[in-house]
Amino acid sequence: MTKIWANSADSHVLEPDDLWTQRLPQRLADRAPRAERGEKFEVLYIDGKQINRQLNDFMDAIRPPGARDLDIRLKDLDQEGVWAQLAFPSMGFWTVEIQDPELAREVVRAWNDWAYEEVLQKNDRIFTPAIVPIADVSDAVAELERAVGMGFQTVFLPCGTRPGEEWGLDKWEPLWAAAEEHNTVLSFHIGTGGENVVYRGPGGAVVNYMETTYPGMRVVSHMVAGGALDRHPDLKILIAEGGAAWVPAIGDRMDEAYRQHGMFVRPKLDRLPSEIVRHQVYASFQHDISGVQIIEGTNYRNVCWGDDYPHLEGTYGHTQETLRTLFDGVDPAIQDRVLRGTFAELFRIPERTAQDEAR
Amino acid sequence: MTKIWANSADSHVLEPDDLWTQRLPQRLADRAPRAERGEKFEVLYIDGKQINRQLNDFMDAIRPPGARDLDIRLKDLDQEGVWAQLAFPSMGFWTVEIQDPELAREVVRAWNDWAYEEVLQKNDRIFTPAIVPIADVSDAVAELERAVGMGFQTVFLPCGTRPGEEWGLDKWEPLWAAAEEHNTVLSFHIGTGGENVVYRGPGGAVVNYMETTYPGMRVVSHMVAGGALDRHPDLKILIAEGGAAWVPAIGDRMDEAYRQHGMFVRPKLDRLPSEIVRHQVYASFQHDISGVQIIEGTNYRNVCWGDDYPHLEGTYGHTQETLRTLFDGVDPAIQDRVLRGTFAELFRIPERTAQDEAR
Repeated sequence: MTKIWANSADSHVLEPDDLWTQRLPQRLADRAPRAERGEKFEVLYIDGKQINRQLNDFMDAIRPPGARDLDIRLKDLDQEGVWAQLAFPSMGFWTVEIQDPELAREVVRAWNDWAYEEVLQKNDRIFTPAIVPIADVSDAVAELERAVGMGFQTVFLPCGTRPGEEWGLDKWEPLWAAAEEHNTVLSFHIGTGGENVVYRGPGGAVVNYMETTYPGMRVVSHMVAGGALDRHPDLKILIAEGGAAWVPAIGDRMDEAYRQHGMFVRPKLDRLPSEIVRHQVYASFQHDISGVQIIEGTNYRNVCWGDDYPHLEGTYGHTQETLRTLFDGVDPAIQDRVLRGTFAELFRIPERTAQDEAR
Repeated sequence: MTKIWANSADSHVLEPDDLWTQRLPQRLADRAPRAERGEKFEVLYIDGKQINRQLNDFMDAIRPPGARDLDIRLKDLDQEGVWAQLAFPSMGFWTVEIQDPELAREVVRAWNDWAYEEVLQKNDRIFTPAIVPIADVSDAVAELERAVGMGFQTVFLPCGTRPGEEWGLDKWEPLWAAAEEHNTVLSFHIGTGGENVVYRGPGGAVVNYMETTYPGMRVVSHMVAGGALDRHPDLKILIAEGGAAWVPAIGDRMDEAYRQHGMFVRPKLDRLPSEIVRHQVYASFQHDISGVQIIEGTNYRNVCWGDDYPHLEGTYGHTQETLRTLFDGVDPAIQDRVLRGTFAELFRIPERTAQDEAR
C-alpha cells in the first residue's frame, strides 16, 4: 500500500531534564519547572508552587523510540508517514504558571534558546513554537520579536487563563499586533494553563478529557467576541489537540448571541463571528472521524490533523491505519487539505522530493 | 408560500407571579422562588438565597402577545408555523437551587400541579416537562412517578450541578432506572443550575452565551462516561437550546479518551461513547445552520429544532424566514427529521389534520 504522508499540527518535544540548570544561574534555575517522581505522584515545582500529578502512568506509557532523540525521531516519522511536525513543549508548558516577570522572561528565553539550538538548527521537518513570557505583555512582545528573528514561525499560548488575564482583554493588544505584523501564528494547546483533573467520580478519565476541550473553545470565544481577530484580520490562531468538528457549531452559536443579543454586545465586530472563525481559527484532531466529515457539509476548512507524538492520545504505531480509516472514501481534495494544505497555509515546511516520497 | 410547520423542542412558559403563594402555605411560599425588580437589577429570592440578575432588559424584550396567555399563544404558534412545543419553565428553573428537601418537594409539586391544570389539561399542542426535586433522589423518583401518572412525558433537569451532585454519580441511579422504566425523556436545558454571567470583559455577552454551552456538553460527558446511558439503553436525554452540531465532535473526543486512555477508564462501557451519543443523546438549536449541515456528513440524526418562544434568542416573528433559510436546498428527509421526526421520536403529539395544515 502507498504510504499516506501527513503533516502534524500537534506533536511534542521532551526537553532534557537539565535544560534550565544548564542555562540559567542557580537562583533562577531553582525556581524553573522541575519534576520529581514519588511513589504515586509526580510532583512539579514551579516558582515555589507545588503541583501533584497522578499522571506518571501516562509518561511511562510513552513508547516511540525517538521521543528523546532527534535523529531517531526522524526515523519514527518516516516509519509513520509524518513529514513535518509542529512540536509543542512538554515541561515548557508549565512556564505559563510563572507570575514573576523576571523568572518568566529568563526561563522562557532559555527554553527558546534550547529549542533553537537543538531542534530548529538541527533539522527542518520538526519545529517548535516559541514560548512567550505572559507574566508581562511587553516581555511577551519582546520575546516574540526575538523568536521571529531566530526563525520561529509560531508562539505557544495556553488555553486556560487566570481571572483578569482572559485573552479577550485589551491588555493583550500589543501581542496580537506584533503577531499579526510578523505573520506569527498563535498556537494554543489544549490542557495548558489550568487544572486538568477536575472530577474524580465515575468516568473521570473521559470526563476530564472533555474538560480540557472547553478551554480551547473559550479561547475562540474570547479572541472572536473580544474583537482581537476582527481588529487583526491577518492574525491566525490554532487550537491544537482539541478536535475540530465543534468549530462550526460555536461559530453559529456566537452568531446567535451576537445577533439576538445585539443590544448588549460590545465591541461591535466588522464581521459575524462565524465568518471570523472560518477565516482565522484553525483546529487539530487525531482520531475524530467527524473532524473530516464536517468539512464538506459546513465548508469549515481550517482543519488540521495531528499525531500527538509521542503521547498516548496520539497515533504512534498506528498512524497509517488511522489515516486510512479517516480518509476511506473521502474526496482526495479534503484529504490533501487536512493532511497538508491547512498546515502549509500556517507554516513554511521543506518540500518533499521523490526520494523522500520513497521512504 | 406554503407554511413550513415545525415542532419546537425548546420553548418556555411564563408562570403567574402568584403560582406558589396561591398553592403553598405561607411558611413555604415565602421561601419559593420570587423575583423583585429594582432600578438596575432583578433580585431573585430562593430559600433565603439572594441572586442579583442584570437581565431585566431580556425580560422587557419579550414580545410575543401570547407569552402569558395560552389561547393567544396558540394563535402565535399558528402564525409562526409551530405545531407543538415542549415548553420549559421560567421561574421554575430556579427550583433546582433549593437544597432543603421539604421545600424542594413542595415547591416542585406545586409547579407540576400548576402545569398540569393550566397547560396539559387545557391543550395538547403545548406541554411542559415535570420538574423533579433533586435535593433528594428518592423524592425525585416519587415526583417523576406522580408526574407520569398525570401525563407528563419528560422531566426537566439542570445542566449545571453542585460539586458532589454530578450526573455521573451512582447516587442518581434510581432516577435513571425510573425514567427508563416509564419511557420518560430527561430534558436538560442550557443555562440552568449555575451562574450564567461569568465574564464581564470585552465581548462578555457572546462569551457568556458560549459559557452556557459547556455545561450542556458536560451533562453528555457525565451521562455517557459515568455509564448511566450505557446501563439504560432505552433512556434518552435532550440537551435543549445549546446547539446540536457539537454532538458528533464530543462523541468522537470521548471515544479517543476511552480508547487511548483505556487502562484508566472506569466504568467500562458496552458500547463506544460515540455510539451511545448517536442513539440516546438529542440536542436542539434555533438558528445554527451547522445543526442541519452536520446530519448528512456525520449521520448524527438526533437533531431537533426549537423556537425558544418567547425569548429573545428565539425565532418569534421570523420563524418562517429562519426555517426557509435553514432548509434552503436541504434534502426534505433531513428537514422532516429536524422539524418533526426527531421530536416525534421523543414525544407523543397530536396529529395535524388537513384543517390544521391550512391555518
